Amino acid sequence: MARILLLNGPNLDRLGQREPDVYGLETLAAIETGLKALADELGHELLCFQSNAEHELIERLHAAADEGCDWLIFNPAAFTHTSIALRDAVLASRLPMMEVHLSNPMAREPFRHHSHFSDIAVACISGLGAFGYECALRAVDQRLKQAA
Amino acid sequence: MARILLLNGPNLDRLGQREPDVYGLETLAAIETGLKALADELGHELLCFQSNAEHELIERLHAAADEGCDWLIFNPAAFTHTSIALRDAVLASRLPMMEVHLSNPMAREPFRHHSHFSDIAVACISGLGAFGYECALRAVDQRLKQAA
Amino acid sequence: MARILLLNGPNLDRLGQREPDVYGLETLAAIETGLKALADELGHELLCFQSNAEHELIERLHAAADEGCDWLIFNPAAFTHTSIALRDAVLASRLPMMEVHLSNPMAREPFRHHSHFSDIAVACISGLGAFGYECALRAVDQRLKQAA
Amino acid sequence: MARILLLNGPNLDRLGQREPDVYGLETLAAIETGLKALADELGHELLCFQSNAEHELIERLHAAADEGCDWLIFNPAAFTHTSIALRDAVLASRLPMMEVHLSNPMAREPFRHHSHFSDIAVACISGLGAFGYECALRAVDQRLKQAA
Amino acid sequence: MARILLLNGPNLDRLGQREPDVYGLETLAAIETGLKALADELGHELLCFQSNAEHELIERLHAAADEGCDWLIFNPAAFTHTSIALRDAVLASRLPMMEVHLSNPMAREPFRHHSHFSDIAVACISGLGAFGYECALRAVDQRLKQAA
Amino acid sequence: MARILLLNGPNLDRLGQREPDVYGLETLAAIETGLKALADELGHELLCFQSNAEHELIERLHAAADEGCDWLIFNPAAFTHTSIALRDAVLASRLPMMEVHLSNPMAREPFRHHSHFSDIAVACISGLGAFGYECALRAVDQRLKQAA
Amino acid sequence: MARILLLNGPNLDRLGQREPDVYGLETLAAIETGLKALADELGHELLCFQSNAEHELIERLHAAADEGCDWLIFNPAAFTHTSIALRDAVLASRLPMMEVHLSNPMAREPFRHHSHFSDIAVACISGLGAFGYECALRAVDQRLKQAA
Amino acid sequence: MARILLLNGPNLDRLGQREPDVYGLETLAAIETGLKALADELGHELLCFQSNAEHELIERLHAAADEGCDWLIFNPAAFTHTSIALRDAVLASRLPMMEVHLSNPMAREPFRHHSHFSDIAVACISGLGAFGYECALRAVDQRLKQAA
Amino acid sequence: MARILLLNGPNLDRLGQREPDVYGLETLAAIETGLKALADELGHELLCFQSNAEHELIERLHAAADEGCDWLIFNPAAFTHTSIALRDAVLASRLPMMEVHLSNPMAREPFRHHSHFSDIAVACISGLGAFGYECALRAVDQRLKQAA
Amino acid sequence: MARILLLNGPNLDRLGQREPDVYGLETLAAIETGLKALADELGHELLCFQSNAEHELIERLHAAADEGCDWLIFNPAAFTHTSIALRDAVLASRLPMMEVHLSNPMAREPFRHHSHFSDIAVACISGLGAFGYECALRAVDQRLKQAA
Amino acid sequence: MARILLLNGPNLDRLGQREPDVYGLETLAAIETGLKALADELGHELLCFQSNAEHELIERLHAAADEGCDWLIFNPAAFTHTSIALRDAVLASRLPMMEVHLSNPMAREPFRHHSHFSDIAVACISGLGAFGYECALRAVDQRLKQAA
Amino acid sequence: MARILLLNGPNLDRLGQREPDVYGLETLAAIETGLKALADELGHELLCFQSNAEHELIERLHAAADEGCDWLIFNPAAFTHTSIALRDAVLASRLPMMEVHLSNPMAREPFRHHSHFSDIAVACISGLGAFGYECALRAVDQRLKQAA
Repeated sequence: MARILLLNGPNLDRLGQREPDVYGLETLAAIETGLKALADELGHELLCFQSNAEHELIERLHAAADEGCDWLIFNPAAFTHTSIALRDAVLASRLPMMEVHLSNPMAREPFRHHSHFSDIAVACISGLGAFGYECALRAVDQRLKQAA
Repeated sequence: MARILLLNGPNLDRLGQREPDVYGLETLAAIETGLKALADELGHELLCFQSNAEHELIERLHAAADEGCDWLIFNPAAFTHTSIALRDAVLASRLPMMEVHLSNPMAREPFRHHSHFSDIAVACISGLGAFGYECALRAVDQRLKQAA
Repeated sequence: MARILLLNGPNLDRLGQREPDVYGLETLAAIETGLKALADELGHELLCFQSNAEHELIERLHAAADEGCDWLIFNPAAFTHTSIALRDAVLASRLPMMEVHLSNPMAREPFRHHSHFSDIAVACISGLGAFGYECALRAVDQRLKQAA
Repeated sequence: MARILLLNGPNLDRLGQREPDVYGLETLAAIETGLKALADELGHELLCFQSNAEHELIERLHAAADEGCDWLIFNPAAFTHTSIALRDAVLASRLPMMEVHLSNPMAREPFRHHSHFSDIAVACISGLGAFGYECALRAVDQRLKQAA
Repeated sequence: MARILLLNGPNLDRLGQREPDVYGLETLAAIETGLKALADELGHELLCFQSNAEHELIERLHAAADEGCDWLIFNPAAFTHTSIALRDAVLASRLPMMEVHLSNPMAREPFRHHSHFSDIAVACISGLGAFGYECALRAVDQRLKQAA
Repeated sequence: MARILLLNGPNLDRLGQREPDVYGLETLAAIETGLKALADELGHELLCFQSNAEHELIERLHAAADEGCDWLIFNPAAFTHTSIALRDAVLASRLPMMEVHLSNPMAREPFRHHSHFSDIAVACISGLGAFGYECALRAVDQRLKQAA
Repeated sequence: MARILLLNGPNLDRLGQREPDVYGLETLAAIETGLKALADELGHELLCFQSNAEHELIERLHAAADEGCDWLIFNPAAFTHTSIALRDAVLASRLPMMEVHLSNPMAREPFRHHSHFSDIAVACISGLGAFGYECALRAVDQRLKQAA
Repeated sequence: MARILLLNGPNLDRLGQREPDVYGLETLAAIETGLKALADELGHELLCFQSNAEHELIERLHAAADEGCDWLIFNPAAFTHTSIALRDAVLASRLPMMEVHLSNPMAREPFRHHSHFSDIAVACISGLGAFGYECALRAVDQRLKQAA
Repeated sequence: MARILLLNGPNLDRLGQREPDVYGLETLAAIETGLKALADELGHELLCFQSNAEHELIERLHAAADEGCDWLIFNPAAFTHTSIALRDAVLASRLPMMEVHLSNPMAREPFRHHSHFSDIAVACISGLGAFGYECALRAVDQRLKQAA
Repeated sequence: MARILLLNGPNLDRLGQREPDVYGLETLAAIETGLKALADELGHELLCFQSNAEHELIERLHAAADEGCDWLIFNPAAFTHTSIALRDAVLASRLPMMEVHLSNPMAREPFRHHSHFSDIAVACISGLGAFGYECALRAVDQRLKQAA
Repeated sequence: MARILLLNGPNLDRLGQREPDVYGLETLAAIETGLKALADELGHELLCFQSNAEHELIERLHAAADEGCDWLIFNPAAFTHTSIALRDAVLASRLPMMEVHLSNPMAREPFRHHSHFSDIAVACISGLGAFGYECALRAVDQRLKQAA
Repeated sequence: MARILLLNGPNLDRLGQREPDVYGLETLAAIETGLKALADELGHELLCFQSNAEHELIERLHAAADEGCDWLIFNPAAFTHTSIALRDAVLASRLPMMEVHLSNPMAREPFRHHSHFSDIAVACISGLGAFGYECALRAVDQRLKQAA
């Protein structure tokens, strides 16, 4: 059984309100509830944290390292393209990471084509909406079970 | 009658203290007072907010969307060139925006020549000092009255 | 019930033989068998095709359009970065596409960072090994059921 | 009391006819008449000149320097991006300049993102339509009165 | 009387089926039949070949050199932007070439703006649909008759 | 029956004198006479204008819009690569355009590889000498007759 | 006697825990204690502040300007490469700055090769670990004593 | 005895008035008078022409070719960096050219570092003020006498 | 005794016919015969394969890995610059490679200056014509004998 | 006790004469004398060498490797940006290196922003004047004592 | 009366032998003799130095500063494009410089288009052969006499 | 019988001492002895010269031209990427050149990917160690015998 941190970056607290035609009607709370149930079912503990503040995400990663987390599922949202401090925090945490994006950044503006996280991620999933988190969680589970 | 949000980014709380030869002697409080009076005179409500913290600006934008704001006048200061998270928050708020800069970024260092906001702004005003906010406010008023 | 085409590009016939430390020990045939069973279980038909020849992949896409396929799951392998002809064939087929990569191209050489397919893909999944195909298949299923 | 030159570049003689959905229905003559009245009211003289010919704009700037003009309000239109000769003429005239654009070039094609004038302008106003000229005129007036 | 080779690249076998709003309803077979009739009328022989396979196009060019062809009319389609091997085959054939595109690549994605063939072509015709082939054929004829 | 404007840019008045080995011995007057006869035969009116002055070309385009022209055949010569003002004038005229070049710019210096007109042209014809104008005229005729 | 501010950016609170093979086993608290003792010995006051939050660093710089600080020793960590807002705050504080990095950014990833601070720093010291702060402090002392 | 054309581009009619600290107090008329006397003394005829209009310079070059000119001394001023049409006119005139600049463009803004004329010039002289024309004239004379 | 694969890419079947002034009069068959004799003499087996089809080259490399080849001598011709799929096949084969080119690509067009193979090659030999293959073969032999 | 080589590159023999406002009044001889005394005090031997000739610096590095030097303190001056041969000599010497610059290259012209040495240096110190050498020497001493 | 240093860089000792079709038949010794005579006639002393060694040129510049030279005429030859050390030596000498090239670098390979000296030169003369030195010498003389 | 110059650039005097795992244990003297014996056997004279000084290599090339050398085999080592002066000396010598590198620069750092010599070399051989010189010598011999 593993402890998995689900981290969500800026503006994702607005899911369900913000551009529903693009991001769907489901709120982040609903998504987190569903994922926690799935983690539970798979025998894992899922910790959820969202913040619009870079430093809160950094400090949550610091804490995760101290709390003995095993895996990170991370949607850095706009920080994907701009935050080297978060990248450093991920590296410092030594947590293996699944990078998830709700939409497909490669089909959007050019400044969304570069990620400061993809080259240190185990895997990248984008464009699947909230289902992407589920895939990431199942993939973490699969890896944990294969390793066990 | 409209509700207009005036948003000011990092270091602008230092106006009047910081490099007065460049930015003038007027404080941000004095500028806001003057603009509120003008808004009042034009029949609008002006909400003012400044922060050095990206996440507070993001959350002020989230709140503005919820409070029924109609327009945004925004001087993102240094975040102009670095914050995609704020850009996303502006887009998510669906508020039409006037981008204002006190000095003229195009006459400064090359890294100030690109803005993450200009391509989603209705208009851009730079180099007019505090008078630029007044122009933006009058332009918002003109547009509102033309649309009425 | 839908008809889904799984297309695999050059060198993927060598899975299981080629760099097993990187790509695992499972052969493409075994992966395809597993996925067909899953598709069956979900109520869909999965058609599988691999080729090292760009023109055979193009022509398979032409045929898919004629056969009434509904979805494409595509791992273009090295053609990801070089084949505009395949991109044109995908567009001509009008099939919605999931782009899958076994490894994570963003963690590899710079010439693997650009894909001619990502901007026309619904979603991109990379770094999950063969489990990435399963995620793609489940995501297609989810979308089909949501749309139904 | 000051003498101010309003200079307009190529295709702006077509205002009111050309793409009215983008540029509005007002003709340049009407805009000039309105601005002259405003200048008059503020106690200044406004000289207006438009040309599609680069050399006529250059020569108007030469003449302005000889006539004792005090300020320049300039919409170089497409010459913004291509004419170093006009830039040289502005510099040679030693007139302080307000750069005005009716639409917002930063929201248009990439080749409109660079201006040969912005780095030598006091201020830049774009996207406000004809109201941009009024802002520029009022800003000139404000500066003249502050300096007096 | 000359022997002229008309070569068409990948996906052009789908003309008439593929995106008819962009490429029209005429099939390649119909276009070839019309052009052969025109060549005949002008006193020339037109050989037609299409393939989705780069190597078949290369080998058709090798054969053309051996068969005593005099001119090449070539629509390399997506290979325009990617195939140096085809460019080498054209150069090795020593055939003068007219480059034809049905649509106008310069009005499409940036990766279609570079051609590996244009700098070795006598002439380039794009955006005229099937009529572009007719122009190329008439131009070859005109050149042959002027040279005669 | 349509009214078609044939516009030629700088240095093209020297055709027949200038580098005859490259551009041939025919003068522009002779070419225009031949094209007018062809237009007449096809049932159209061809208006011809050449200038070395960018502003005269711009103003000819303004006039064309007022005169009810239907199509533009345009060889912008060196302005192809430098004149955004002319591009704006073409767009403002709302005339569909055929871009023609006597030689093949892609086989010349790199600064001739970019055109400010190609992405707004219906079609591009280059390298065919004066015959390129004839192709453009016939293509316009074909389109007019197909639309009729 | 001078007042010197030692500022440390994101993730540096993890020194001693994070990647000890790279950054050593000493904690930031221990480093600060040692440097305060040295400053004391040299006759100066050393103020120490670390934050993972950009706005807290900005505001510490604002306060430093108000408190009459004389010098800044700054390790901006990952903000080195991304924060123009901090650069603006340093400039607004008018404090001369020593830029210090524990590791050598030039020997790391390319995105660490550009600093938004080096061109406004008096001096740059990198790769010396915690000893770099001591060098900076001694250099400040030397400059103060030379100027005295 | 040769006929030499001295051509001067935009803003050079302002010499003596414009930025005398940079360009000196001598007018263009005075410079031309001096150079004509020198040409006379050396046994040549010097024709002088200045214009702010690109098309007038182009047409002067066309005429020069017809008048049997032997050499061109050309200061294209700001057109150096922007006018391909003038470059074409120089090439069409087949006149050997000396390129002269009063100031040294390489010590000015980056956009002045590229010249559309230098690669087709026999020689380039910059930074010598009006003496540069004299050097060019003497160099032409020397070449003519060496060739004789 | 070793088994060595000599692989030749597109258009090399035309050696002796194609541009003999550049590539010489010797056919590929003659070259292969000579090299086989040399391999024999040195105590090795040389397998020869040429194809214009990328997939046939890929599959020959797959087979080579299965057949127990020891070394690869590869002239990828135009695929040098475009085929990542072939690069992947070479890497998957785990064969050490000598890259050979008949002419010197660095003295040709810029798009020939980059090779997808050189950074994974043991050695690169270009510009020696058919003698380059002989050097490569002797170098393989030398290495094998040194290792023995 | 260690043997440390202090190497200084071109123009540094002019210290004290050359631009004293930038580089101070101290000569290189005086600096070397001071550093030798410090090395002595710390229990090390400091060897000093300056040359304006790249090959003499290269050969001094070759000799240092033979003489059993332990550390290198190197100010390559202008060779920092241009000499790969010196970089190779440093690597061949296998000496760990401290890179020192008197002024801060990052605050100077762009061509001084890249160093061929920084990525192979243990540490980089710039902008501290002669005190930078002292820091480097003390850092070497600290490292030697920590390792002892 | 002034002391002027004429400095010539690598390979210029071969003038008269090397590529006489490009550089003429005159040797450097003959050119220096002629220029010394001219300097004498104008009342100045001309010191001449050529070297293929960068350090000898650097040291000649150091000496020139000590000897009280007034002006530098410098043809850095290939060092134009590569030697920052020489640039530094010129700046350190504080001598005003005329940059001379025998041929016109802008008409040669792209790597010759950038000079490390032009932005610090008073003037640049290229393409005039040995006459360029004479122009530089006369220009120095003219400046000295104007300043007197 | 021909006279062939073997030229080796900086740091190659350290062969056998420097990084033996990369460059082998053989000294340059041993390599030269072996190559002289081979040249002798083939009926040629081999002159050998190595220097760490660019000017000595330049002057050796000047001398070679005077001594009637017929061919150059050149390993410019680090000067490959930086010395235009050596390139000029090779061109001035008019000697045909074989470029040899012991290791494969394309598999090393990006700044080693460009050579100032490859585009003027007959052939390039890299990655074969000392055997590369032998290949070059045999290739020179083969060319000389073919030409004889």
